Amino acid sequence: MGTHHHSYNVEHYELIHDDLTSLEVHPDRIDWVHVEGGTDAELDQLAEKFGMHRLVREDIGTNKQRPKVEEYGQHVFVVARIPGARPSDPTIQVSFFLGDAFLLSFCQETTTCFDGVLTRIEQGGPRIRRFGADYLMYALIDAVIDAYFPIADEIAEGAEDIERVILEGADDELLVDLLATKRHLRMIRQVLAGHREALRVLSRDELAPISETARIYLRDCSDHCIRILDTMEGLRDQTSDLVDFYLSQASHRMNEVMKVLTIIATIFIPLGFMAGLYGMNFENMPELKLPWGYPALLVSMFTVAVGMLIYFRRRGWLGGSGRRR
Amino acid sequence: MGTHHHSYNVEHYELIHDDLTSLEVHPDRIDWVHVEGGTDAELDQLAEKFGMHRLVREDIGTNKQRPKVEEYGQHVFVVARIPGARPSDPTIQVSFFLGDAFLLSFCQETTTCFDGVLTRIEQGGPRIRRFGADYLMYALIDAVIDAYFPIADEIAEGAEDIERVILEGADDELLVDLLATKRHLRMIRQVLAGHREALRVLSRDELAPISETARIYLRDCSDHCIRILDTMEGLRDQTSDLVDFYLSQASHRMNEVMKVLTIIATIFIPLGFMAGLYGMNFENMPELKLPWGYPALLVSMFTVAVGMLIYFRRRGWLGGSGRRR
Amino acid sequence: MGTHHHSYNVEHYELIHDDLTSLEVHPDRIDWVHVEGGTDAELDQLAEKFGMHRLVREDIGTNKQRPKVEEYGQHVFVVARIPGARPSDPTIQVSFFLGDAFLLSFCQETTTCFDGVLTRIEQGGPRIRRFGADYLMYALIDAVIDAYFPIADEIAEGAEDIERVILEGADDELLVDLLATKRHLRMIRQVLAGHREALRVLSRDELAPISETARIYLRDCSDHCIRILDTMEGLRDQTSDLVDFYLSQASHRMNEVMKVLTIIATIFIPLGFMAGLYGMNFENMPELKLPWGYPALLVSMFTVAVGMLIYFRRRGWLGGSGRRR
Amino acid sequence: MGTHHHSYNVEHYELIHDDLTSLEVHPDRIDWVHVEGGTDAELDQLAEKFGMHRLVREDIGTNKQRPKVEEYGQHVFVVARIPGARPSDPTIQVSFFLGDAFLLSFCQETTTCFDGVLTRIEQGGPRIRRFGADYLMYALIDAVIDAYFPIADEIAEGAEDIERVILEGADDELLVDLLATKRHLRMIRQVLAGHREALRVLSRDELAPISETARIYLRDCSDHCIRILDTMEGLRDQTSDLVDFYLSQASHRMNEVMKVLTIIATIFIPLGFMAGLYGMNFENMPELKLPWGYPALLVSMFTVAVGMLIYFRRRGWLGGSGRRR
Amino acid sequence: MGTHHHSYNVEHYELIHDDLTSLEVHPDRIDWVHVEGGTDAELDQLAEKFGMHRLVREDIGTNKQRPKVEEYGQHVFVVARIPGARPSDPTIQVSFFLGDAFLLSFCQETTTCFDGVLTRIEQGGPRIRRFGADYLMYALIDAVIDAYFPIADEIAEGAEDIERVILEGADDELLVDLLATKRHLRMIRQVLAGHREALRVLSRDELAPISETARIYLRDCSDHCIRILDTMEGLRDQTSDLVDFYLSQASHRMNEVMKVLTIIATIFIPLGFMAGLYGMNFENMPELKLPWGYPALLVSMFTVAVGMLIYFRRRGWLGGSGRRR
Repeated sequence: MGTHHHSYNVEHYELIHDDLTSLEVHPDRIDWVHVEGGTDAELDQLAEKFGMHRLVREDIGTNKQRPKVEEYGQHVFVVARIPGARPSDPTIQVSFFLGDAFLLSFCQETTTCFDGVLTRIEQGGPRIRRFGADYLMYALIDAVIDAYFPIADEIAEGAEDIERVILEGADDELLVDLLATKRHLRMIRQVLAGHREALRVLSRDELAPISETARIYLRDCSDHCIRILDTMEGLRDQTSDLVDFYLSQASHRMNEVMKVLTIIATIFIPLGFMAGLYGMNFENMPELKLPWGYPALLVSMFTVAVGMLIYFRRRGWLGGSGRRR
Repeated sequence: MGTHHHSYNVEHYELIHDDLTSLEVHPDRIDWVHVEGGTDAELDQLAEKFGMHRLVREDIGTNKQRPKVEEYGQHVFVVARIPGARPSDPTIQVSFFLGDAFLLSFCQETTTCFDGVLTRIEQGGPRIRRFGADYLMYALIDAVIDAYFPIADEIAEGAEDIERVILEGADDELLVDLLATKRHLRMIRQVLAGHREALRVLSRDELAPISETARIYLRDCSDHCIRILDTMEGLRDQTSDLVDFYLSQASHRMNEVMKVLTIIATIFIPLGFMAGLYGMNFENMPELKLPWGYPALLVSMFTVAVGMLIYFRRRGWLGGSGRRR
Repeated sequence: MGTHHHSYNVEHYELIHDDLTSLEVHPDRIDWVHVEGGTDAELDQLAEKFGMHRLVREDIGTNKQRPKVEEYGQHVFVVARIPGARPSDPTIQVSFFLGDAFLLSFCQETTTCFDGVLTRIEQGGPRIRRFGADYLMYALIDAVIDAYFPIADEIAEGAEDIERVILEGADDELLVDLLATKRHLRMIRQVLAGHREALRVLSRDELAPISETARIYLRDCSDHCIRILDTMEGLRDQTSDLVDFYLSQASHRMNEVMKVLTIIATIFIPLGFMAGLYGMNFENMPELKLPWGYPALLVSMFTVAVGMLIYFRRRGWLGGSGRRR
Repeated sequence: MGTHHHSYNVEHYELIHDDLTSLEVHPDRIDWVHVEGGTDAELDQLAEKFGMHRLVREDIGTNKQRPKVEEYGQHVFVVARIPGARPSDPTIQVSFFLGDAFLLSFCQETTTCFDGVLTRIEQGGPRIRRFGADYLMYALIDAVIDAYFPIADEIAEGAEDIERVILEGADDELLVDLLATKRHLRMIRQVLAGHREALRVLSRDELAPISETARIYLRDCSDHCIRILDTMEGLRDQTSDLVDFYLSQASHRMNEVMKVLTIIATIFIPLGFMAGLYGMNFENMPELKLPWGYPALLVSMFTVAVGMLIYFRRRGWLGGSGRRR
Repeated sequence: MGTHHHSYNVEHYELIHDDLTSLEVHPDRIDWVHVEGGTDAELDQLAEKFGMHRLVREDIGTNKQRPKVEEYGQHVFVVARIPGARPSDPTIQVSFFLGDAFLLSFCQETTTCFDGVLTRIEQGGPRIRRFGADYLMYALIDAVIDAYFPIADEIAEGAEDIERVILEGADDELLVDLLATKRHLRMIRQVLAGHREALRVLSRDELAPISETARIYLRDCSDHCIRILDTMEGLRDQTSDLVDFYLSQASHRMNEVMKVLTIIATIFIPLGFMAGLYGMNFENMPELKLPWGYPALLVSMFTVAVGMLIYFRRRGWLGGSGRRR
């Protein structure tokens, strides 16, 4: 949390913490002011100093803007969203306000997403210290987009877990998981689609403070974004297939249950009828008096049962070894 | 209901009620005439005074136009729709007729949607009194769009309620609720898609009475509109998922019913057959005379029943503790 | 049926019936020739007189063209379709051939769709007699589009009827009705989508014989068309929902049937087994000799039955009062 | 099979069979060379004579190109596909190579699709002999598109047959037919969509050898193509509806089966229990000794059965006369 | 694996293996350097020698780029993907870096995809040795696209196998196969859609090092790509149909099972009741004493059974010969 003012050029690098009052923009340096969870007063102060439009000022103080690019005269305002941890809204807004030689970035929460870029600045990475504020913004946005690759992997793994569990015997709570996965995927896709649009504008339109050099890099970043979106599209289709798969497995198991019931009932109901027949108390039932009546009946019952079993095996209802199950 | 003529500039603010005859447009002021449920005569009078096209005159008297923007020479005619309360058509038409320094707004019903803007004018808000009629129209349209955020929340809560009830055991009337939610969502989405198109035209095309300043604000408003639409898209997918979920829960419960039937029938039908067998009246049934015949049969029956139960437990049909239910 | 030649300007109005031989175009009048079910000879005569392209001549003699706009030099050829009564093809073709000061309209059948426009011409409506042939064509196309509003209402009512019947207990023939509604809707939507495209061309492109004035009116007509299409889109989604709804109701009723079967079988099969047990004829069955054996068994049977009922009530299978049905 | 060289102008018409060696292009005539199943040598000879690009030469020798239009300098190469009889690939490729005053057409198989055009040339039809090679190509492509109208009718009839059979009681092989119909429809739609694109290019782009006159005719042909595609779209939706319909009928019939089972079981299982009760051999069962015990039991059984029937009738399970079935 | 430097013109052809240090570009030759699985050092060396942008350098070292075309000054960078064997990612990246008279190609794995092109260069094919590096790149990309035709055939055969098995009696593991096929199809389609976009850019945009001649060939290649995509679209629809088909077959088989159960239970439960009735031990049951009581009962039982069978035959439940099954 707090304000970090990084001021650097090829030779120098300086970091000033939490001091906006003496904030100075150096003519021969790149100034990057990163504000995490700034107070309203701090944001107002920065807005005035850097000539922000009132609407930009409003947007940097919120956490619900969609990814977008807006041009304000010589300045460019970009909103992006980094993956976060809350289940209700799984992304956090970061905003960039880019001028000719400065970049302001805002986030309402603490984020480690930009640590890699920071290290490259501190250690004097070859390009980042030589290029301008537009390249810095590219590097930060690239870090944002790259943060979605693990998310995509995570969702893909989740989908595979679900598929495996369905195969083993679909659990009822699985569908709840599947719905949650679909919803998560939907939210991430929507945010990424916003990023794609924003990056298309940044890399194609000739916005004032963005040089040709940075545009080539932004084009590459746009490409990464499209690549994740492709993966996401694939995952969307896959989860839809899984719903079908789940329903079909459920219907398959119902079928199994029905077959067991049918086999038992179909064998024993006729046999039960035969037994019931000779349990009747008619006085004139000559079979009952025959000494071989009882064994003969047992033999017929066995024959009927075996006949039924043969019929079921032919129909493929006796699982396991048959071609059909 | 009635006509409210607000006439203001940075210094002055005046409100005239229900008096169209002496209506005067001041050269150095912004004149906003808001008509709620105006009679045909009043609308005709205004149409003539402000040079409305016949088609504009027709549209302001109805309640069924879609959101749209139309240019008539130096004037712009905008139709928007605010959320209303009727279930059959859940939105109410408001129309704006914008000239260089005046704005006419029309609504067939009383609405509190613009109260916030009115307060800002009365209390001399910093921008609204300084900027022109185009900014006033932006402020009113922004109020219209913002009125949809609670609607989106309401639908989202409704969908979550439905999901929770499905999880607890899907109620049949739930599906009726779900269908009603989907229909409501569909209507709101259609209206918002109309607004998005209208705002795209207002913020991009160079329409005569709209200044660059107001266009930037309209772009922001357009962004709000797209944000709600994004939410709506998410809700649409979510409700579709809920239908699947409901059907799968129904099939799951059917499966449960079938299992109970199958377990009972599969255990007792064979036992019943065995009992029936020894209920027969053959004279020559040596088992009946054995002293241990009856206990032996009871033991076999018990064995069969336990065998069945073991089989069902292996199949995962005996719910509760097993991994599969 | 027959040919009606209306010749008018602000002051005069004249109607000539069925006389194509002396057909004359007046330099200072608008001439509207409306042909219903013309013979090939009549159509050929008109085609030659007004310099129609062979393909226009072919199209006006048929009843199966899609809505379209075609430019032939200084003339514009428009095909529209009005709602008709035949179930196989629910629309009838009308064609317009527009020149600088004349309009030819063709229909293979008698239609009352244009009666309102005719009345306005006869009675000297304010605009129709003052404006040109392009405005007349607008008025006629507007009448065509307006004829679809009742159709949309009819389909909407049909869908609501179906929904109500499904709720009361889905009838099997309902699905046939639903399919027929969907098909009707599909045909109407396709025709209206054609009209939308045609009206977009008429109101945007600068076609020779259509003035700026008429274009504004055509834009309004285009708007009506989009409004009906919006309604149609909503109805399409609604009918799709109804299919889901129907299937879910059917599955719900199946569930009810299964529950009744399960309750009865689950209660009486075990009881039947107990009765069967004591119907056996073993000599050594001491229970049979106990004086309280029979009452004890009856009590156990009652206990089992009540236990089952309690189990079912807990599962929510005993409809009516329970939260779940 | 073979090569037909038609050479004509308004006055003359000449036909040369199978003679490519002396093939001559007349300066004042239209030359149409139609090759059916030409050998590689023949095709090479023609390719060289008329300056075909290597890729054109390759494409005319195959049967698997998609409909397309390609411009090669002053020549236009068009691929279309006519309906054929093979079930695996239901269309046959025809290719056109159009120059200023000649047209080459190629087909790997014998086709009667162009017989109508040929007759018009032979009999000196009014336009075909007067207009150029571009009009000839239009006439041939128009014949190709028109050949799809009977196909659309055939599919529509097939779909109606299937619908009728489903209504009468869905046959299992029906679904196989339905799948085959859907696949056929899909293939035809894909080919027609290709034709639509090709015709859009031919009728809009200003390709070198195609005159304004022919473009108007091609626009008409494009219209026919879109009309069939509209029909096809309708059929696609209709066949999708039929799958739903089939599944719902199957579930309806399952429901019927379940009801019969439930009615029988629900009536007779309790009655069977009552009979079993009095089949028990307890010594102390006073009812057995009552003279009116048996008739009383019969009466109770009758009462139970009638009570069940009334219950089922109320539930609407006893088909036929009830409102619900 | 390794580096192959092919240097050729119409007269000469030379191949240098694995020697990047002395790599020389000849002014009057085409130089094609193909690197399979190059080390980072080798790639860096090439990148420096040919002036690659850092982003190109990064992309050639990976295996996960999407198909794309990027212009870097006078150079064009193309990524394509050839079908591979791994189930998780079924394609392998190949990259092309095209200059005026040289082409670099990179692949992280060994591939035989370009062997045909290589043979044509070695044997002095008519065009490939005469045309430039742009034609060479076309030839290689064409080989890439052609490699997808067998994949499409393979998927189509797989889908047909699945359909046949479903018809014979749907196996449960089939659905797993079907899901795998759908996923494979999805991945291939996504890659091909990327190729289509890349080829559209290559064949339409006027990129610096690509001549008009090569563009015509690339247009042809683009066409092949669209053709496979068409096939893929068809296969996608077909596999979706198969899921429906599978589910409907499953429900059909469930229906069969239910019918068998219903027939058996419906016939024997009433008969069992009749037998149970006369197994009762009432003292006053006059039927039991009648000498023809037993035969009369057997006759009634037979009558009931035959009546039931007739009823089932009318309902079409007794399979085989009936119109309905």
